[in-house]
Amino acid sequence: MSTPLSFQDIILRLLAYWKEQGCLVQQPYNIQLGAGTMNPATALRVLGPEPWNVVYVEPSIRPDDGRFGENPNRMQMHHQLQVILKPDPGDPQERYLKSLEAIGIDPRQHDIRFVEDNWDSPALGAWGLGWEVWLDGQEITQFTYFQQAGGQTLDPVSVEITYGLDRIALALQGLESVWSIAYGAGIPYSDVLLASEIEHCRYYFEVADVEALKVVYDTYEREARRCLDGQLVFPAHDYNLKCSHLFNVLDTRGAIGVTERANYFRRMRNVARDISVLYMAQRQQRDYPLLHHGLWQGHTADESGRVDFSLAPSFPHPFVLEIGSEELPAADLTAAIAQLRTAVPALLTELRLDYDTVEVQGTPRRLMIFVSRLASRQADRNTVVKGPPANRAFDAAGHPTQAGLGFARSRGVPVTELQVVEEKGGQYVAAVVRESGRAAIEVLAEALPGCIAGLTFGKSMRWNQTNVAYSRPLRWLVALYGAQVVPFTYAGVHSGRTSRGLRPYGAPSITIDDAANYARLMREHSIVTDVETRQATITTAATALARSQGGVYRDDPELLEEVANLVEYPTVLYGRFAERFLDLPAEVLVAVMKKHQRYFPVYAPDSRLLPAFITVRNGDAVHLDTVTAGNEQVLRARFADAEFFYRHDIQQPLAAYVPQLATLTFQARLGSMLDKVHRLEQLTPAVARLLALTAEETAIAQRAAALSKADLATRMVVEMTSLQGIMGGHYARTSGEPEAVALALAEQYNPVSTTRPGLALALADRLDSLLGLFAVGLAPRGSNDPFALRRAALGIIENLVANQRSFDVRAALAEAAPLLPVASDAETMAAVLGFINGRMEGILRERGISAAVVRAVLAEQGHNPYAASQAAAALAEAITAPDWPEVLASYSRCVRITRQLQETLPMQPEALAMPAEQTLWTAYQAAAASQDGTVTRLVAGLRSLVPAITTFFIDVLVMDEDLAVRHNRLALLQRLASLPTGVADLSHLEGF
Amino acid sequence: MSTPLSFQDIILRLLAYWKEQGCLVQQPYNIQLGAGTMNPATALRVLGPEPWNVVYVEPSIRPDDGRFGENPNRMQMHHQLQVILKPDPGDPQERYLKSLEAIGIDPRQHDIRFVEDNWDSPALGAWGLGWEVWLDGQEITQFTYFQQAGGQTLDPVSVEITYGLDRIALALQGLESVWSIAYGAGIPYSDVLLASEIEHCRYYFEVADVEALKVVYDTYEREARRCLDGQLVFPAHDYNLKCSHLFNVLDTRGAIGVTERANYFRRMRNVARDISVLYMAQRQQRDYPLLHHGLWQGHTADESGRVDFSLAPSFPHPFVLEIGSEELPAADLTAAIAQLRTAVPALLTELRLDYDTVEVQGTPRRLMIFVSRLASRQADRNTVVKGPPANRAFDAAGHPTQAGLGFARSRGVPVTELQVVEEKGGQYVAAVVRESGRAAIEVLAEALPGCIAGLTFGKSMRWNQTNVAYSRPLRWLVALYGAQVVPFTYAGVHSGRTSRGLRPYGAPSITIDDAANYARLMREHSIVTDVETRQATITTAATALARSQGGVYRDDPELLEEVANLVEYPTVLYGRFAERFLDLPAEVLVAVMKKHQRYFPVYAPDSRLLPAFITVRNGDAVHLDTVTAGNEQVLRARFADAEFFYRHDIQQPLAAYVPQLATLTFQARLGSMLDKVHRLEQLTPAVARLLALTAEETAIAQRAAALSKADLATRMVVEMTSLQGIMGGHYARTSGEPEAVALALAEQYNPVSTTRPGLALALADRLDSLLGLFAVGLAPRGSNDPFALRRAALGIIENLVANQRSFDVRAALAEAAPLLPVASDAETMAAVLGFINGRMEGILRERGISAAVVRAVLAEQGHNPYAASQAAAALAEAITAPDWPEVLASYSRCVRITRQLQETLPMQPEALAMPAEQTLWTAYQAAAASQDGTVTRLVAGLRSLVPAITTFFIDVLVMDEDLAVRHNRLALLQRLASLPTGVADLSHLEGF
Repeated sequence: MSTPLSFQDIILRLLAYWKEQGCLVQQPYNIQLGAGTMNPATALRVLGPEPWNVVYVEPSIRPDDGRFGENPNRMQMHHQLQVILKPDPGDPQERYLKSLEAIGIDPRQHDIRFVEDNWDSPALGAWGLGWEVWLDGQEITQFTYFQQAGGQTLDPVSVEITYGLDRIALALQGLESVWSIAYGAGIPYSDVLLASEIEHCRYYFEVADVEALKVVYDTYEREARRCLDGQLVFPAHDYNLKCSHLFNVLDTRGAIGVTERANYFRRMRNVARDISVLYMAQRQQRDYPLLHHGLWQGHTADESGRVDFSLAPSFPHPFVLEIGSEELPAADLTAAIAQLRTAVPALLTELRLDYDTVEVQGTPRRLMIFVSRLASRQADRNTVVKGPPANRAFDAAGHPTQAGLGFARSRGVPVTELQVVEEKGGQYVAAVVRESGRAAIEVLAEALPGCIAGLTFGKSMRWNQTNVAYSRPLRWLVALYGAQVVPFTYAGVHSGRTSRGLRPYGAPSITIDDAANYARLMREHSIVTDVETRQATITTAATALARSQGGVYRDDPELLEEVANLVEYPTVLYGRFAERFLDLPAEVLVAVMKKHQRYFPVYAPDSRLLPAFITVRNGDAVHLDTVTAGNEQVLRARFADAEFFYRHDIQQPLAAYVPQLATLTFQARLGSMLDKVHRLEQLTPAVARLLALTAEETAIAQRAAALSKADLATRMVVEMTSLQGIMGGHYARTSGEPEAVALALAEQYNPVSTTRPGLALALADRLDSLLGLFAVGLAPRGSNDPFALRRAALGIIENLVANQRSFDVRAALAEAAPLLPVASDAETMAAVLGFINGRMEGILRERGISAAVVRAVLAEQGHNPYAASQAAAALAEAITAPDWPEVLASYSRCVRITRQLQETLPMQPEALAMPAEQTLWTAYQAAAASQDGTVTRLVAGLRSLVPAITTFFIDVLVMDEDLAVRHNRLALLQRLASLPTGVADLSHLEGF
Repeated sequence: MSTPLSFQDIILRLLAYWKEQGCLVQQPYNIQLGAGTMNPATALRVLGPEPWNVVYVEPSIRPDDGRFGENPNRMQMHHQLQVILKPDPGDPQERYLKSLEAIGIDPRQHDIRFVEDNWDSPALGAWGLGWEVWLDGQEITQFTYFQQAGGQTLDPVSVEITYGLDRIALALQGLESVWSIAYGAGIPYSDVLLASEIEHCRYYFEVADVEALKVVYDTYEREARRCLDGQLVFPAHDYNLKCSHLFNVLDTRGAIGVTERANYFRRMRNVARDISVLYMAQRQQRDYPLLHHGLWQGHTADESGRVDFSLAPSFPHPFVLEIGSEELPAADLTAAIAQLRTAVPALLTELRLDYDTVEVQGTPRRLMIFVSRLASRQADRNTVVKGPPANRAFDAAGHPTQAGLGFARSRGVPVTELQVVEEKGGQYVAAVVRESGRAAIEVLAEALPGCIAGLTFGKSMRWNQTNVAYSRPLRWLVALYGAQVVPFTYAGVHSGRTSRGLRPYGAPSITIDDAANYARLMREHSIVTDVETRQATITTAATALARSQGGVYRDDPELLEEVANLVEYPTVLYGRFAERFLDLPAEVLVAVMKKHQRYFPVYAPDSRLLPAFITVRNGDAVHLDTVTAGNEQVLRARFADAEFFYRHDIQQPLAAYVPQLATLTFQARLGSMLDKVHRLEQLTPAVARLLALTAEETAIAQRAAALSKADLATRMVVEMTSLQGIMGGHYARTSGEPEAVALALAEQYNPVSTTRPGLALALADRLDSLLGLFAVGLAPRGSNDPFALRRAALGIIENLVANQRSFDVRAALAEAAPLLPVASDAETMAAVLGFINGRMEGILRERGISAAVVRAVLAEQGHNPYAASQAAAALAEAITAPDWPEVLASYSRCVRITRQLQETLPMQPEALAMPAEQTLWTAYQAAAASQDGTVTRLVAGLRSLVPAITTFFIDVLVMDEDLAVRHNRLALLQRLASLPTGVADLSHLEGF
């Protein structure tokens, strides 16, 4: 192996490579930027219709990524190499991969992957879809189809390729830290940049003068505005960049709260938008000088000529459609397969094409539809077409009139074949139109574009002049009916018979001679098209691999689904990390492995973590050691980062973070997170009382409430929000808080609390959020639920149910209301309760309980989720009893006759004269006395009353003429009717 | 010829070239910089002992160079490519020239020159010596030996090479404007950068918010200080750079007065100094990590062994010394030749080496000493050494004592050869010590280093580890005595026999076999070593060339001397420029041609300028057309710039610039230039009255005074200070001022005024400066004359003399005094007058007038320069008359006898009784009546009195016992003695 390139040689080679691809070679910008995207050579040039191809290096400054030179690959300054290709040249990924080869990265020796990563800059009003490119697990490039910039939709779309040069050098030189990289001239990277790195970190984290820089920000924003007033795009952009850097510095100093942050973003975005609009107007005014630039013509598909379908085969054949694309996001792949599994059979039916089976599969680079024994032609079809009334089509003599003749002619049938049909009492002539089936290949050619277009994705993108939207750029189409191409064009791509092989093998062309051979050819090229097979392969191999190392692989279906969808040919590998990282909380390690790297953790038999991980490579086992070493290196850097946060966070006790919550806005009118904490400190004990906690438990709950949000101000949680609560628990322990407090903190966001103080806190937190946000008018609408209030409501319900706790939500809301800084009236509380009931209804219905039963129970117990849940189950059971209709009918008679009464009548038992009256009264008293609020007792009671009620209605005329008698009887029935009050409203039930 | 490189390819090639030379390849800095020097890769890395070799591109921002994209090669942003070589590799110029070849610049096809240009950044506390490199007249590179940075002396010195990439591309692609340059990918430079250029100009010149940015400057300076307090070098440097850019913006907006500017410079320099000191301390603390870097060892001369001088020839031979160096500044070359022409003969004499002739010559790259028939050995020498007194060296018997024996032994002579010598009346023994002459080659080897070290230059530099100082790096030494090398080492260079040829021929090695052949070999290699020959060649060729084009070449000795010293082989060429530029004032065109380009203007026979110039190329006529075209292109850009200034300046009348003078400080206590103008508006009419100008002339002078400094605020004068006054005159005309006002303005700085209003203004201006600056204690001291007050005094004198105007300086100073904002007492006025008299004395003495005469005249007429000048000449003439001693003696008798009298005695003519008295009185009256203040009449009068005086002293006893008689006679003599009052004080004369 030859000596790897130095850092400077990597840069020079890449510049030369992209120059050869027709790019301009520009310089880094002379203003501190967070990313090459902000350089006007990108930020402005991507706007408007003009072509633009450029490459440049951009030392990028991200103050909050500073680690004082202690992290192996995370720094406040890293070097980007930025490429813009506008418009899409049609093969940007291939060009990119060749650029890696140009600097010595052989795809055969590594694992290079395109992992979904969508880019969004709220400060720039910009976003795009694309990938992180992973080299042996290390993110080395951001590859994006830029969709919008400065709030403007981009047309054409630009391909943006952003190399992380430092990490590439690290990988290429096989080192453990960027500071060891050979920069050039025999000098290590550390000698060039380390002193500056450390000092800049100290400036950003410790020294910068917050108040003074805020003033400069305001000044520079005004300068940007002055520039815009003077129609000066570039100077305005410069100032917006300076503002952005100042913001980053302020942010790193911890000087910016959430609301303030949104405010700064809005300000920068507004300036960016105005700059973009002005730039586009100016370019238009100059008649787009680069628009007719010869070298930069976009890639356009040449239209294929008409096709002769007469050669179509005449008996069934297999059909295959392969939609080849750049790497689909894992979730999009899953979604697309599901959609096609429904859509394709429906389509074939609609097309009247018989078939044997439909199989839909896919990998990140291809969606595949295989239809066996597809009919060569559509079935013929007779259609009855209604014509004029019969008496106008034929005269009285039965001869056709002009109208009749005209209709027959227009439908292409002899007049003699017209029939008479009857409709809505009238008689009409009708023609039976016979439609011959067309060749399958012809109808497929027509239908397939619509089939592909019918796919929907969470986020779609455009990439070329056709402006077709798809998950990621669609690059090839294989469509074969038997040996014949089904010819069509979609998104500028012509269908054909050429597929592409695995990327690690150089993505060779694969010619499919016949649809029948598709599966075999894929296998021969090591492509595992079948999702389930890939998943099974991974599970089997991972289990065996873990076991061989004395460890345990745990199923993780969600992660498995994603991982299996990131590869076309999974090969599992086993990596290790340093033991010392096990000192960090296991949740942190697991979160890092799963979230950032999609690694499977490996456990010891005693369930503790082993210092190891399992991951999957796309391709075979060749040079697997290189890939393993690369992944280990990545994880080392990730863990070092976590260690950095952890060490920082435990320098002060958890309680010390509480005051910082004042800068974190919960919601504008509801105050900061600190305000919320203050409310929870009062609400949690009240909830504890409602839950009948002991004094000791209540004190623990209250302490937990006081610390509940402190971890939001720690670096670990700022970096990985998913660890909120969990870190609170850890830091509580390191701060010497009681274990019970730590437990309550740790589980506060869990669906189910395992401790009683934890339950009190979890309920209080969610109740405060629900009532507060409803009170300020932020109840969820439609699919818009930014504060995740549905989850909060579900959390209350499920937690109470799981803990089998009766709990009066109404009472709790009444405690919460006065603590809020805004008024919340009875109506608001009712709305919250209604919202919770809505979730309850969903849960109970999902358990198979009928809507009627659910409604019946919620009408009386909606405020008490656990009780309602129990009651619903019991009621659902009860109504299955054979005598239930009789019981209900009996009860309902009592209700119906008393329903119109406005008020509860007084009851005079001594005035009941008739035996049936007296018997019923006695029976009622016994039934009422037996009630305990459960459905069981209720139903038993009602059942016990049936004979007495029956006798009563036989023997007694309720509506006696004597009003006193009548009223006394009605009063008795009212009491019977109210027996289920507080348990269920039986009037909702069927048969009532 | 192959296609020239694109702009981006030039960059990539140069980076690759310097990488091959062992340089690190770094990136431009991410802060707006005025020059690559400010990038910490230079500004900090040049400090301290560590080696450092780096190359990087630096887009450099100089707001006030902005021309709104209208100039062909001047922009607010240009691209530098910066190279630092530390330490000096020994051949940086050759490496640099090879880099030009690497991008396709063939030295044979162009004129590449190293033209002195010393670099100095007051804001950075940095300076260096070196050159502009000219490519066909175009400055394409700054080549500097960096001597000091951040106020710290650099050791080792760094070689700093700063390419002007845009201009190089312009030249290489043979274009007329940078905006036409092919940038790369088929895109012109204009499509990449023009819009940004124009907009940034508009921002810098028209939009930037001055007050707001001043506040930011203060904030950023404080941030820099905070960083320094925290020991953070790099962040502090960043802020200092930001301050520098802010300053440039403010300056371009015209928001910074002279004093304020100095203040800002001081602030930036102080921060830069503190940064440098801190950086150096930190590097030392880290034990200089790069110090032992293997690849970057400095260039050290290997010491040569001892030399055997026994082979020295034994009869006279020619001797040649050639001191080869990088290009000497023209003035240094002249100075060095002059010094050697004196020093070498003196040295040879001191060395007792006989010779025939000494010739000293030189070119920019070599100083040459040729000695014909130099003796092969020193002459022998006998030295008499004095010993002890004779009576202690020999006893009474004449035998030597121990003392005598010891002395003889110590001097190496037999005691018998001791002699007795007499000195100051004592007798001593003495030894005659005989010293044999050593070989010439040996004594030369010893003496030549001292001879070279004895050269002094205006500014010397160090460049390598020897820390020897010389004008520019000394690179080779030829020292031959006949065919033999005179071996010595100086500045790390060993003497030898290898010289180097012309740069355009690739500077081939020239081996000198024998000193006798030196001149022939130089001729053969086309090197014209003789300064006078080069000058004559240029004059002859230029005259002929101009004539052939119908024009006239005018002698300009100063320019000729410089131009002849810039080349080793002059070839004259004739270039043209566009007619339209002739619309600009001729002075502007001439100033641009001479000052910036060292071109000779060409005149039509009617003395108007022709649109043409003559310049000199170093080398022969091969590809002279390319060189001519290049020079024409340069001049076009220069003139376009002048046109830009001119067009801007005439957009408002000259008077409109007056208020801007408020920001231009004249002197702190004397106020702004506007204050000075206000004083001149009052003083000039007063001076006019003293000059007896008419009312009309006075009005003109006053108007001129009001406008006198306005042009200092115009862009043309800001750019070319030498045009002050001249531009005032032009702009007065374009503003519609009377021609007389324009004339007065135009000539205000001239030594001689041609108009009377101009004279009044010129005198008023200088008097105000003299009196004001003396009053605030800024009279010149020693050689320190920052306000050029010597020139001001001379200007007053010469102007009055040339205009033959009597003028009472005392009266004028009395008018000036009350106008000043500071007190100026009689003593101050006397000091000014004394200062002017000092200059007068110098002028008159230079005319050959004796000190006595000058003193005599100045004693009486020092306040009136013209009159004094006339009187001195006349008196000098008068004292040459044969009878003058008699006349003076006669007069002096009258003076001497009355000198002690304290007061003038009353005269009673009627009381004169004796005929001699009466005769004298009568004669006196006649003489006194004939006086007109001239020396001629005075001398005639004194001569006429001689007989009467003689008779008087014979006949009359002055000191009569009768006091009344005595006093009357003394009174008569007092009147005689006072006859010269106001003309001359004859007591200063010889023979008085």
